[in-house]
Amino acid sequence: MSGNTFGTLFTVTTFGESHGPAIGCVIDGCPPGLSLSEADIQPELDRRKPGTSRHVTQRQESDTVEILSGVFEGKTTGTPIALLIRNEDQRSKDYGNIVETFRPGHADYTYWQKYGVRDYRGGGRSSARLTAPAVGAGAIAKKWLKEQYGTEIRGYMSQLGELTIPFEDWQHVHANPFFAATDNPTVLTNLEAYMDDLRKQGDSIGARVNVVAQNVPVGWGEPIYDKLDADIAYAMMGINAVKGVEIGAGFASIAQKGSEHGDELTPEGFVGNNSGGVLGGISSGQDITVSMAIKPTSSIRTPRNSIDQQGQSSVVQTFGRHDPCVGIRATPIAEAMLALVLIDHALRHRAQCVDVQVATPKIAAKKEG
Amino acid sequence: MSGNTFGTLFTVTTFGESHGPAIGCVIDGCPPGLSLSEADIQPELDRRKPGTSRHVTQRQESDTVEILSGVFEGKTTGTPIALLIRNEDQRSKDYGNIVETFRPGHADYTYWQKYGVRDYRGGGRSSARLTAPAVGAGAIAKKWLKEQYGTEIRGYMSQLGELTIPFEDWQHVHANPFFAATDNPTVLTNLEAYMDDLRKQGDSIGARVNVVAQNVPVGWGEPIYDKLDADIAYAMMGINAVKGVEIGAGFASIAQKGSEHGDELTPEGFVGNNSGGVLGGISSGQDITVSMAIKPTSSIRTPRNSIDQQGQSSVVQTFGRHDPCVGIRATPIAEAMLALVLIDHALRHRAQCVDVQVATPKIAAKKEG
Amino acid sequence: MSGNTFGTLFTVTTFGESHGPAIGCVIDGCPPGLSLSEADIQPELDRRKPGTSRHVTQRQESDTVEILSGVFEGKTTGTPIALLIRNEDQRSKDYGNIVETFRPGHADYTYWQKYGVRDYRGGGRSSARLTAPAVGAGAIAKKWLKEQYGTEIRGYMSQLGELTIPFEDWQHVHANPFFAATDNPTVLTNLEAYMDDLRKQGDSIGARVNVVAQNVPVGWGEPIYDKLDADIAYAMMGINAVKGVEIGAGFASIAQKGSEHGDELTPEGFVGNNSGGVLGGISSGQDITVSMAIKPTSSIRTPRNSIDQQGQSSVVQTFGRHDPCVGIRATPIAEAMLALVLIDHALRHRAQCVDVQVATPKIAAKKEG
Amino acid sequence: MSGNTFGTLFTVTTFGESHGPAIGCVIDGCPPGLSLSEADIQPELDRRKPGTSRHVTQRQESDTVEILSGVFEGKTTGTPIALLIRNEDQRSKDYGNIVETFRPGHADYTYWQKYGVRDYRGGGRSSARLTAPAVGAGAIAKKWLKEQYGTEIRGYMSQLGELTIPFEDWQHVHANPFFAATDNPTVLTNLEAYMDDLRKQGDSIGARVNVVAQNVPVGWGEPIYDKLDADIAYAMMGINAVKGVEIGAGFASIAQKGSEHGDELTPEGFVGNNSGGVLGGISSGQDITVSMAIKPTSSIRTPRNSIDQQGQSSVVQTFGRHDPCVGIRATPIAEAMLALVLIDHALRHRAQCVDVQVATPKIAAKKEG
Repeated sequence: MSGNTFGTLFTVTTFGESHGPAIGCVIDGCPPGLSLSEADIQPELDRRKPGTSRHVTQRQESDTVEILSGVFEGKTTGTPIALLIRNEDQRSKDYGNIVETFRPGHADYTYWQKYGVRDYRGGGRSSARLTAPAVGAGAIAKKWLKEQYGTEIRGYMSQLGELTIPFEDWQHVHANPFFAATDNPTVLTNLEAYMDDLRKQGDSIGARVNVVAQNVPVGWGEPIYDKLDADIAYAMMGINAVKGVEIGAGFASIAQKGSEHGDELTPEGFVGNNSGGVLGGISSGQDITVSMAIKPTSSIRTPRNSIDQQGQSSVVQTFGRHDPCVGIRATPIAEAMLALVLIDHALRHRAQCVDVQVATPKIAAKKEG
Repeated sequence: MSGNTFGTLFTVTTFGESHGPAIGCVIDGCPPGLSLSEADIQPELDRRKPGTSRHVTQRQESDTVEILSGVFEGKTTGTPIALLIRNEDQRSKDYGNIVETFRPGHADYTYWQKYGVRDYRGGGRSSARLTAPAVGAGAIAKKWLKEQYGTEIRGYMSQLGELTIPFEDWQHVHANPFFAATDNPTVLTNLEAYMDDLRKQGDSIGARVNVVAQNVPVGWGEPIYDKLDADIAYAMMGINAVKGVEIGAGFASIAQKGSEHGDELTPEGFVGNNSGGVLGGISSGQDITVSMAIKPTSSIRTPRNSIDQQGQSSVVQTFGRHDPCVGIRATPIAEAMLALVLIDHALRHRAQCVDVQVATPKIAAKKEG
Repeated sequence: MSGNTFGTLFTVTTFGESHGPAIGCVIDGCPPGLSLSEADIQPELDRRKPGTSRHVTQRQESDTVEILSGVFEGKTTGTPIALLIRNEDQRSKDYGNIVETFRPGHADYTYWQKYGVRDYRGGGRSSARLTAPAVGAGAIAKKWLKEQYGTEIRGYMSQLGELTIPFEDWQHVHANPFFAATDNPTVLTNLEAYMDDLRKQGDSIGARVNVVAQNVPVGWGEPIYDKLDADIAYAMMGINAVKGVEIGAGFASIAQKGSEHGDELTPEGFVGNNSGGVLGGISSGQDITVSMAIKPTSSIRTPRNSIDQQGQSSVVQTFGRHDPCVGIRATPIAEAMLALVLIDHALRHRAQCVDVQVATPKIAAKKEG
Repeated sequence: MSGNTFGTLFTVTTFGESHGPAIGCVIDGCPPGLSLSEADIQPELDRRKPGTSRHVTQRQESDTVEILSGVFEGKTTGTPIALLIRNEDQRSKDYGNIVETFRPGHADYTYWQKYGVRDYRGGGRSSARLTAPAVGAGAIAKKWLKEQYGTEIRGYMSQLGELTIPFEDWQHVHANPFFAATDNPTVLTNLEAYMDDLRKQGDSIGARVNVVAQNVPVGWGEPIYDKLDADIAYAMMGINAVKGVEIGAGFASIAQKGSEHGDELTPEGFVGNNSGGVLGGISSGQDITVSMAIKPTSSIRTPRNSIDQQGQSSVVQTFGRHDPCVGIRATPIAEAMLALVLIDHALRHRAQCVDVQVATPKIAAKKEG
């Protein structure tokens, strides 16, 4: 109820604050028999962790994960899997100058009003650091989905500020610090220069991230309220700094006609994917395609007008180690959240419909990359 | 679990199909003591119902609501409120020609694959008709929020296909069939002509709808996963045909810098509302602003390629009584869903934080309309 | 949250008051493809309904059920099944004398304090009449469990006041008005005489009811908190007037030694059933055996001391049509609740463990009737 | 869904196995502003921990708790509180002899069948050790209830095998190893002798434990399904080895007449407490009284017939360090579970009914000890 658990059948309950002793989560509902160790989880955490390039926060955190339960002799037992990540770099003195004021665009004002408590240490629980446990849980979900259905979940950054980044090939995503699906040197150099310039200004910038799930079976998602796309929107909008979510054609649908938008069916598969792989809230077997807008970081060096806890005018500057573009590290987070939505619906579908047999084979699922 | 209940503390469990005997819902968690009768609910249903202009479906449904429980001597008792709406116009023969084929862009393919059942009668449970019970529940939520906090929830259509519709004043929304916030005759004439032309073509079109909640107290929303904006995205993306959701600056955030996006605070209130009234998932006291993209109706007269239940090529045309632009009737639905999200978070906030007192008065909430 | 929904994956959300327009429920999560009509449900409602003998309340209610949704062409569709039962005999003037006072042992005092509302019409929502929708839902659960697993759920009254009633054979349960599993004329005559005497006194009496589920597969139930026996205890204690619940040996376990209590295993099955079919919260494949204590009705003609709404001393007598032993009609209710617990756990087990294969065959399940 | 989370608004999600690296829980929904440190929790864990007398298991565990999150500057923040307890004494070789067989009356058979996994290390997740995290969470619930409402929750053992233990005074409970509410030397000597004899036999015995909550406000509990007594029954039956639960008069209600059972009301309070403090599922303001039956431990040295994983006959003896009467350590566990039920309903009541004002003062709550 208090908003720290994700999912219905495959649940992730997180805990921790940016500068407390530890962060982590309890994963409940993972099917038994999945082979699992820390080595399956750590690589995803490493993709998200700070300090991997000069374009992200320089906070030093190894984000080393420990599995505390739920795995026996290398396999999941069906009981809760607890993940623990100790916080290491807790230089909370960096935050001294914002203890009494509120950053424009930051949660510190609303948390204080809600709870009557001001945890000024690095944003406390509102820190994007709290996405790490979900990334850990997502690694487990990804592995299970891959083994059971061949499902592949991948993301990339498609826009940084005004710079759009063309999609060329998935293999490039891991080869640059921007999660860009390109190896075009001009594009990458522009991105580097853009970020370097931004850091000098002491400012931050927004971004667009896309995620795609391939090989998702037809039939996942619930009607009316827990539609697959509704749950995806919930998951993505819940990622820190996300301000907009699209499925398939998204906002382009506004100007489309029905004769253009509705993807025709042929015996060989769907023609086009305006639906983004979801029809009536239920997966169609096509690729699930999601796009999201990520706002610029609110913690910047540029001076801004604000108020203090007494309600008086104040000027605030943030000198801590912050990402100038939180969108850069958002790609593995978005992938994890999509994996968590999908595994949850996979289990929900099994509960109610495991016996369902339709009369004819499913149509072929065309891939559109 | 099976996706027919909305909410956590103020829950709405819906039932019914487009052409079954009845539709309705059970509302649980409504505080006791609210004065309530059918007269509070029917006007909202009337705003959504079919047949109110030539631009929407001509199906004849009075959508008369009956309260079956939960109200005694004119006041809510704290026990479940059941709403019943009998279906009246069940001309399911209209659907005869699509019994064996699947409409491109429609849920009939995915429902069939999921459940192994083909309820061909007007889309069965996937019909947008199933938004009516939520609109009824939303009327109750609206009334309670208004009485308790003065909260005002209103929506309007801001774009129809390529035609953008300027916002002028809330009072105009009820005075035209498009939920347009304008009385500009040129704009309204263009909308009429656009729709008339579309009907002649046998095609459909997308739309954009905005909803705004004013006088929302600071502090509603949960951290990490049940963020207020995440729950709003879930609610809106769950409305039939919605393909994208934005909060505040939405996708425009991508190209904004932090020094531009973060709304500064002053003793008199926030300056600007890029946040859309939500910071860190918690309401800030500013207006909650939401925008959504609605795809064109998939049931159109234009012939489309498809397959039949045997997987063979087929051509499908839909001759039933369908909305050429489902976006038109989406405004009251979006308002209702926003009301349901807000009342749920109001109750959640009371449960955990009713005793919280912050040290200083809240900053003034500027209205931006 | 507000306590009107039962279950996790197979949920039953009830509504209605004793003397309102109607009662009913929405059942969500029923697997698709189950053949279903009112004829499957009505017989169970008839077993519970009032007026079937002189030993139960003489209120006249046909309790005719209407299926409003979720069934198409005679089969469940996987979407919500709404059941509606109109109230017919609403002689609420019978309750006139208790409008201002509180019955000792009745919920009218606590409801008033909780909600600030006094629905004096027949107990409002606290009436045992509200078990009818659950009995309807239970009929569906029973049918599905029987078809899928051969599960058989049956109950009987084993004690009425001081009179213990020996179990002889299931076939007798339906042949007398007491749900007694005997056709011994002395026993039945004693029961009749006991009840006739009680009615003359204007008093009421407690009872014990047992329920048994046979052919429950091994493996249902969750560890730690949603143990199968914990959920059964929750379901039974939630039935109006139940004050105690036992599984297997129950309170007799207190004086047992481990060498006596633990049911030994042999290749042919378990020896004994002190466990009541549940080990560590998970079904063992043995019969699930449950016993419960039902308190005497609080609405009696005998004058009792009480207070009125102003807190002043008062004397209360209840002249409405009440059951002198609510335990008599509790048997079909207890069966229904057990069925609802079992189907919920069946689906939960499928979600997480549908792929589990143990190395050797399950041991034979001995029946102990 | 998978049964490792307790509660609705104040939730406790546990993790861990008897012989894994650690056990613990995440507590979500605790109101902010409660002063809290490990010193508030450790004493309750110490009451439950092993090795405190010769009558309980000799396993050496300090059960030292660490708070990982949710507390800042000595007060709860409203965000999740994670508790961590490292396992120290993991002599799993003790269990070597039961790796391949199943203990009569133990969960190892059902876990294996359910999950297809055999975690033979001390019962894995089915171990009573897993009650420790809930005891930790219960300590927090107790503290909050005491501070907010003066609620006092206490328990005692009232029967050990055939030996009944008279209740004399709460102060004695902490002064003997049995949680007996007496200082009668004869009674205590008999208990010592009984247990010593039992250990020599290599056998185990059942027990009865009672818990009482005083100063519970009227109005907590939900109608129909989440009745306060139903949730208590669920909580208690979920404690390892519990086979029966009673509220108030419990099974004695069977032979009571209505004129005897229903507690009369006077301006000074209720007369008697057959209800056990709950009417219609809602607290009445009287003491909540609960009694439970605890079966004898299944892990005993006495040889028993069983089967092995191949289904072949086998004889099993357990030589590990086990409690000969798990009932002894059950008292602090039962108190914790009652506290968790009550805090959950306190928050639920606030959510829906915080504004309710009844017309007259509540009647005085007589204490009955």
